[in-house]
Amino acid sequence: MTLDVAIVGASGYTGGELLRLLLGHPDVRVAKVTSNQFAGDRVASVHPNLRKLTDLKFTQHESVESADVLFNCSPHGAAMDKMETYLKRAAKVIDLSADFRLRDPAVYERWYSSKHRAAPLLSEAVYGIPELHREAIRGARLVATAGCIATSAIVALYPLFKEGLARGNEVLVDSKVGSSASGRSSEPGSHHPERSGVVRPYAPAGHRHQAEIEQELSMRAPARVHFTAHAIELVRGISTTSHVFLAKSLDEKEIWKVYRAHYGEEPFVRIVKERSGLYRLPEPKLLAGTNYVDVGFARDPHSERLVVVSALDNLVKGSGGQAVQCMNLMHGLDETTALTFPGLHPS
Amino acid sequence: MTLDVAIVGASGYTGGELLRLLLGHPDVRVAKVTSNQFAGDRVASVHPNLRKLTDLKFTQHESVESADVLFNCSPHGAAMDKMETYLKRAAKVIDLSADFRLRDPAVYERWYSSKHRAAPLLSEAVYGIPELHREAIRGARLVATAGCIATSAIVALYPLFKEGLARGNEVLVDSKVGSSASGRSSEPGSHHPERSGVVRPYAPAGHRHQAEIEQELSMRAPARVHFTAHAIELVRGISTTSHVFLAKSLDEKEIWKVYRAHYGEEPFVRIVKERSGLYRLPEPKLLAGTNYVDVGFARDPHSERLVVVSALDNLVKGSGGQAVQCMNLMHGLDETTALTFPGLHPS
Amino acid sequence: MTLDVAIVGASGYTGGELLRLLLGHPDVRVAKVTSNQFAGDRVASVHPNLRKLTDLKFTQHESVESADVLFNCSPHGAAMDKMETYLKRAAKVIDLSADFRLRDPAVYERWYSSKHRAAPLLSEAVYGIPELHREAIRGARLVATAGCIATSAIVALYPLFKEGLARGNEVLVDSKVGSSASGRSSEPGSHHPERSGVVRPYAPAGHRHQAEIEQELSMRAPARVHFTAHAIELVRGISTTSHVFLAKSLDEKEIWKVYRAHYGEEPFVRIVKERSGLYRLPEPKLLAGTNYVDVGFARDPHSERLVVVSALDNLVKGSGGQAVQCMNLMHGLDETTALTFPGLHPS
Amino acid sequence: MTLDVAIVGASGYTGGELLRLLLGHPDVRVAKVTSNQFAGDRVASVHPNLRKLTDLKFTQHESVESADVLFNCSPHGAAMDKMETYLKRAAKVIDLSADFRLRDPAVYERWYSSKHRAAPLLSEAVYGIPELHREAIRGARLVATAGCIATSAIVALYPLFKEGLARGNEVLVDSKVGSSASGRSSEPGSHHPERSGVVRPYAPAGHRHQAEIEQELSMRAPARVHFTAHAIELVRGISTTSHVFLAKSLDEKEIWKVYRAHYGEEPFVRIVKERSGLYRLPEPKLLAGTNYVDVGFARDPHSERLVVVSALDNLVKGSGGQAVQCMNLMHGLDETTALTFPGLHPS
Repeated sequence: MTLDVAIVGASGYTGGELLRLLLGHPDVRVAKVTSNQFAGDRVASVHPNLRKLTDLKFTQHESVESADVLFNCSPHGAAMDKMETYLKRAAKVIDLSADFRLRDPAVYERWYSSKHRAAPLLSEAVYGIPELHREAIRGARLVATAGCIATSAIVALYPLFKEGLARGNEVLVDSKVGSSASGRSSEPGSHHPERSGVVRPYAPAGHRHQAEIEQELSMRAPARVHFTAHAIELVRGISTTSHVFLAKSLDEKEIWKVYRAHYGEEPFVRIVKERSGLYRLPEPKLLAGTNYVDVGFARDPHSERLVVVSALDNLVKGSGGQAVQCMNLMHGLDETTALTFPGLHPS
Repeated sequence: MTLDVAIVGASGYTGGELLRLLLGHPDVRVAKVTSNQFAGDRVASVHPNLRKLTDLKFTQHESVESADVLFNCSPHGAAMDKMETYLKRAAKVIDLSADFRLRDPAVYERWYSSKHRAAPLLSEAVYGIPELHREAIRGARLVATAGCIATSAIVALYPLFKEGLARGNEVLVDSKVGSSASGRSSEPGSHHPERSGVVRPYAPAGHRHQAEIEQELSMRAPARVHFTAHAIELVRGISTTSHVFLAKSLDEKEIWKVYRAHYGEEPFVRIVKERSGLYRLPEPKLLAGTNYVDVGFARDPHSERLVVVSALDNLVKGSGGQAVQCMNLMHGLDETTALTFPGLHPS
Repeated sequence: MTLDVAIVGASGYTGGELLRLLLGHPDVRVAKVTSNQFAGDRVASVHPNLRKLTDLKFTQHESVESADVLFNCSPHGAAMDKMETYLKRAAKVIDLSADFRLRDPAVYERWYSSKHRAAPLLSEAVYGIPELHREAIRGARLVATAGCIATSAIVALYPLFKEGLARGNEVLVDSKVGSSASGRSSEPGSHHPERSGVVRPYAPAGHRHQAEIEQELSMRAPARVHFTAHAIELVRGISTTSHVFLAKSLDEKEIWKVYRAHYGEEPFVRIVKERSGLYRLPEPKLLAGTNYVDVGFARDPHSERLVVVSALDNLVKGSGGQAVQCMNLMHGLDETTALTFPGLHPS
Repeated sequence: MTLDVAIVGASGYTGGELLRLLLGHPDVRVAKVTSNQFAGDRVASVHPNLRKLTDLKFTQHESVESADVLFNCSPHGAAMDKMETYLKRAAKVIDLSADFRLRDPAVYERWYSSKHRAAPLLSEAVYGIPELHREAIRGARLVATAGCIATSAIVALYPLFKEGLARGNEVLVDSKVGSSASGRSSEPGSHHPERSGVVRPYAPAGHRHQAEIEQELSMRAPARVHFTAHAIELVRGISTTSHVFLAKSLDEKEIWKVYRAHYGEEPFVRIVKERSGLYRLPEPKLLAGTNYVDVGFARDPHSERLVVVSALDNLVKGSGGQAVQCMNLMHGLDETTALTFPGLHPS
């Protein structure tokens, strides 16, 4: 079986990363990669790492007439108007934009300041974190991959919230984010002299990914997420520090068991918590190009605070890799296919 | 009046920065700079930015026989054994190590895991943040400058705690710290391939500076500080994000007023909170070489959380510059003398 | 005497740096800073390092009616149409653009692909490197500051060419350049994810500054400059490696003497060539914010090649600082006024 | 067929990278990885990117008793004393140190300042660049992989020298090198505050790799290499700019043909020379983790100079990947096995 796939909006960073992964997938034929801006150009002229790997050229968006899987990498807001069409043309659709992540249209409207234009599909869409929704993803027709920062926080916190271990159902999340997370378009804030070396609190008190985190953690009662994000000197990678006050006293061993119970069998979650060495807790620079989300924690000896640290590559586990992992599940393939790059050290 | 000053332990980063500032001070003659390791060498061989500025050479520590001001930049633990001697040889002593920052010997012992060997002097030493202790510094014989991370948190939070605005007297502090804060000695964790590009939670749940923050914020009842520090890709600079839950509902204007009331006249505190532009909140890369501590904040629209952001140069306002500012106060000089470098943009 | 100065085009990086320096100059009153784009805005909203230092606001370009000194920081090509007007309105004009650097209109046309529209003024303009043209600058009405890369190469090579020591009058120049040298405007190539960490040969075989280098080195016969420039991971700073084949055999001591003879008395040229330590040759990261140009060299033991290494801050000695140095000379002030910042280490 | 391989000295960066590649090789079983320092420790404690991939532990060097292939990653100078033993214990040896790269013991002695202690083996060892020595590598018992900088220069220049196109058989080579090229040991010069952001000419006039370049380019008459190396702000990667003066006038098309003729069929050499886009010439940041060496060039319009630009990842094509490529050839495997990672963009 070879899957015919199409990538709509393939000239951005997310699309390029997805294409890199799919070109190495043994069960996939990349049939179409679209970009209205670059239609006619070789993909390697936009994604220079793909030189010598492919002769594919971009085509217009409307050139996608049928596919086994259609990946949408168009910017937020574009997918909701096209989704009905996509679902007619492709057997399965994986949407990497933010359009179908929130199940409740009212929540969408509150965070995105506009009405959702394909609200009936929201309840069908499955949120694409396999560690939480594996079975639903397997059977889904439409999967919405999670936000990159949201993924780092949700995977880190899910076991604690699922087990009711967060006092007051409350958590404080502080993310440090690389520049590729803002996409390919240059703007004054991404100008190298201004962006280099910053510790810029670009979302000091709230960010749309907060809505996703709240949705996914609300296992019991409404959870409260206090969210802050900083742009720092990184191109790829997110490091998220989540501060949880424990509902009951637990020592490190007990917490470790909670994580083991949830993630011990997960192929892409590593529990990283070492007593020695330079990388005792998750470190995004080890994860560039990989589909791992590393999770570790430290117990504050002076209070009931638990500091949970998680890291991932925003373009892989945070988008393109997560999408491929979902595709593998949706087609009964080995979940890790095309996703086994281990990452570099040093880097 | 020209002050004769001596710097003990002048070959480290803190000593070098202090020396840079003092060489530009019109009322100071740097009489002695000591380093047992580099005795006999020109200071520019260790501090290459001072080439052509000075012909000073390092001498042995014991060569300091008298001075108007003695600055101690030896590592933590060394000053307490020498302080009695220093106070005999110099009219005023400014200690840049951690030895005399904590007033309570028991607190010192808890955080530094050893008995303080000059405990009687602890109550005399004045904590060197002029924004909190200006009058005491003016009259002090012994000043202990504050820890660099501690300074960033204390200046940011003091007005709120002083006014009793923190709910539960509690605060969560997350600092991002440059590599120069660990000093000049190379170690595996500072090896460039391992340190470059990291987001390393090196003190995920507690750091000695926490003790200073708790001491200085305890205006009313014991404050609780939940502290986390990350090593990030920066050489100079600290950015600290402090999360405070407000004791009563306050809008941004009211909070602004609190900060204005405390810091409106301060020469080295800038309240940075803008509606537009790329630098709406404090940014350490603008502060390299300066004695500013910038403070700003954002009010979480979804909760009573206040996110206070502060930034400084760990080697200037976080140590050498703070020491010079104290010296100026202790000798009746204009507080800003030798500290007026405005910082670079871009950088 | 206080000089009234105006900066035309003050919103760019060059204008901002010039303004920073002039605000610290005791003999200067900054009367006007212009920017058509930002007219009415406070300068600190564009140059955030100047917060709390000045209340100046940008005005329209045409608002400059008279000044003791007019600095032009408008982009290349703009000054030549305005220069007649500038020279009527200001007693002295210092042009930081490229318009008046080349003395020969034909050379200008060859490199800039357009006719010079104020050719008669080219012969009057003095090339603003004081180390070569101090006396002419003192008496000049119009000074054109040198290109930043050109300055690094010319100061490094001038003594060798002046003394006829370059075989074949030929030199190979390889410059490594920080991102601020391209100015404030963002463009795809300056987008942080694309610009970060590059070693991009943006001018692999020729760059306009080559014309300036050839002009200034042509002490005897026409010199031949083979020029290459790389964009590297730096914000501020240029490091230039120049390879010269010696016309006669000289040992390091003799070469040192040549440099000493030319630059021994220069306040802003340091000959950096040490046998030990980490900074044996010029290093741009030590020079951020300073007006130094450091020059050093190594003699290839295997050939008659001399490797001359030079470094400077492109926004100071490479433009704004050089302009202030010229202004000081033109008005009989101490040449180093406002230019004494020593640079930071580490940084 | 599964090859049993051993890596001697596997705790360094080169050994770790080799291990990463071999763990992904379908025809290889990694039987032994040795480190006297870390014997008994899991390899992931030293190479954190290998977490969850392997349970291998380090053993003592002497534990290697037999192997199909023995890779030596011990430091320079160690292999020559052990090589006789290695060749008895393993059918094939691939040495990643510098010990067997130079064919002439006299040349070795000149550059390494000590007599070679296994000189008879020098003539047997094959220099491990497949693009030059593919057939010899296939039949070799002992392969010495090339220096990382040497590889970048040799692959870039070989076609020109082979065809006699370099005037005077002379070339000027300027390399920019990342910090991982100096290995895992921390030292004052690799301390992050000192190494970050430098443009440090660490080998301004000569480096041992020069000997390798001269050896490999001496197709006709002795070639002269003028070599300079800079440490710059990179962890992985080398960019080399080589300046050649052409022996006869050639336009870009003719030069392109020369490169096509030599490298058109090479799986790991890409000729990168584009008219538009951000990556018109080779860029090391695109190559992290890949086995490519990209080569491009620019013809100086003002002289007969050709600027050849090449880039590679020092730990892959510059050592570990080159070693695997050689192993594949020596065992009749597809040359690209385990080496197909395409690299990341952006990164």
